Amino acid sequence: MSTTLARLAQVIESRKPENGGDPATSYVAKLFAKGDDAILKKIGEEAVETVMAAKDARVSGDATKLLYECADLWFHSLVMLAKFDLTPQQVLDELARREGISGLEEKAARKDE
Amino acid sequence: MSTTLARLAQVIESRKPENGGDPATSYVAKLFAKGDDAILKKIGEEAVETVMAAKDARVSGDATKLLYECADLWFHSLVMLAKFDLTPQQVLDELARREGISGLEEKAARKDE
Amino acid sequence: MSTTLARLAQVIESRKPENGGDPATSYVAKLFAKGDDAILKKIGEEAVETVMAAKDARVSGDATKLLYECADLWFHSLVMLAKFDLTPQQVLDELARREGISGLEEKAARKDE
Amino acid sequence: MSTTLARLAQVIESRKPENGGDPATSYVAKLFAKGDDAILKKIGEEAVETVMAAKDARVSGDATKLLYECADLWFHSLVMLAKFDLTPQQVLDELARREGISGLEEKAARKDE
Repeated sequence: MSTTLARLAQVIESRKPENGGDPATSYVAKLFAKGDDAILKKIGEEAVETVMAAKDARVSGDATKLLYECADLWFHSLVMLAKFDLTPQQVLDELARREGISGLEEKAARKDE
Repeated sequence: MSTTLARLAQVIESRKPENGGDPATSYVAKLFAKGDDAILKKIGEEAVETVMAAKDARVSGDATKLLYECADLWFHSLVMLAKFDLTPQQVLDELARREGISGLEEKAARKDE
Repeated sequence: MSTTLARLAQVIESRKPENGGDPATSYVAKLFAKGDDAILKKIGEEAVETVMAAKDARVSGDATKLLYECADLWFHSLVMLAKFDLTPQQVLDELARREGISGLEEKAARKDE
Repeated sequence: MSTTLARLAQVIESRKPENGGDPATSYVAKLFAKGDDAILKKIGEEAVETVMAAKDARVSGDATKLLYECADLWFHSLVMLAKFDLTPQQVLDELARREGISGLEEKAARKDE
């Protein structure tokens, strides 16, 4: 897996309350302490901010902010995965599985029908 | 970078109209042909479906669908990145950069203020 | 209440399966037949489309599409309310209550803290 | 129009900077001062919170929070409309127009194709 994703997942895991994460000093520990809904709200927020940054990028010709927002979206996805005891490797495996079975677009296409 | 993400990015790139992607046979080529808004709508849709799947997972105790929806969200993020001539490697670099400079949570914390 | 909202709520109510709504001929009856998640997905979709239309309106100077998307968002809110046996009047009452008790912004402000 | 919506729109209008709205004492004036993106983010946030409250309502059997979140969504829609110099009456007119021309579901159905 991506070294970066694996390392991030490891750090995020260490922020869980049961692993000694401290909401007073850690943003991620604070999210874990707040619970599911706080994390899921961030997924929604970061998705909307990503969409807005993309619209802005078309006007300004600068996609830097879009890159940041997409990073935020993936980062909070990792926090969500950890909260549900899932790993980024499992997401990558699922993406690879779809590609392997019947082509990259199989799942997306089926869903689009 | 993750071999999976790199390979997916490569396949997605090949679906662009200028690379011969055919909207008649490829879901991704069809998204590219529809343009920015169609892709950005998918980011919003997959985020909401991810949130709903997470809520369901707490009730059912089964996170399988959450994994699928998160994969969908990442997949459409890759399509969006390609549409704006960005790469997953740049997103991973940005995530690594934040971690490197001042700890994993620097950016997120600043944003949360 | 707004005559329009009341009338819409009445028509939407008539599209419920138990009131004879036919998914083959009615968009709303079809949504009811699909169930909660289909309706909630529309809330997410219409919200994102509203946000995109607002971004476009700033560039084009034309807010017509924003008006349409906001109407779509409210319309699907009405479908959702009906699905959960709630009425637009209850939403308006809640808005009026907040205004009455302690000023229009009480609730929003508390939430923002 | 709904007396409540008209009154809310009037109060919101009075919170605009050019009408003397004070960001120090008014939540809405603060939103106006922050600008478009802050308001649009709230549309995304409230939509996701509405979706989560609906999922919770099915589990708990209590739709009270869903009602609150829908009120929040409509409230922030009103703030957005004001920011773009639109009125709730225009949204209601658009909803009534669709009903008038070719039946309530014309627009939604066309969009769904």
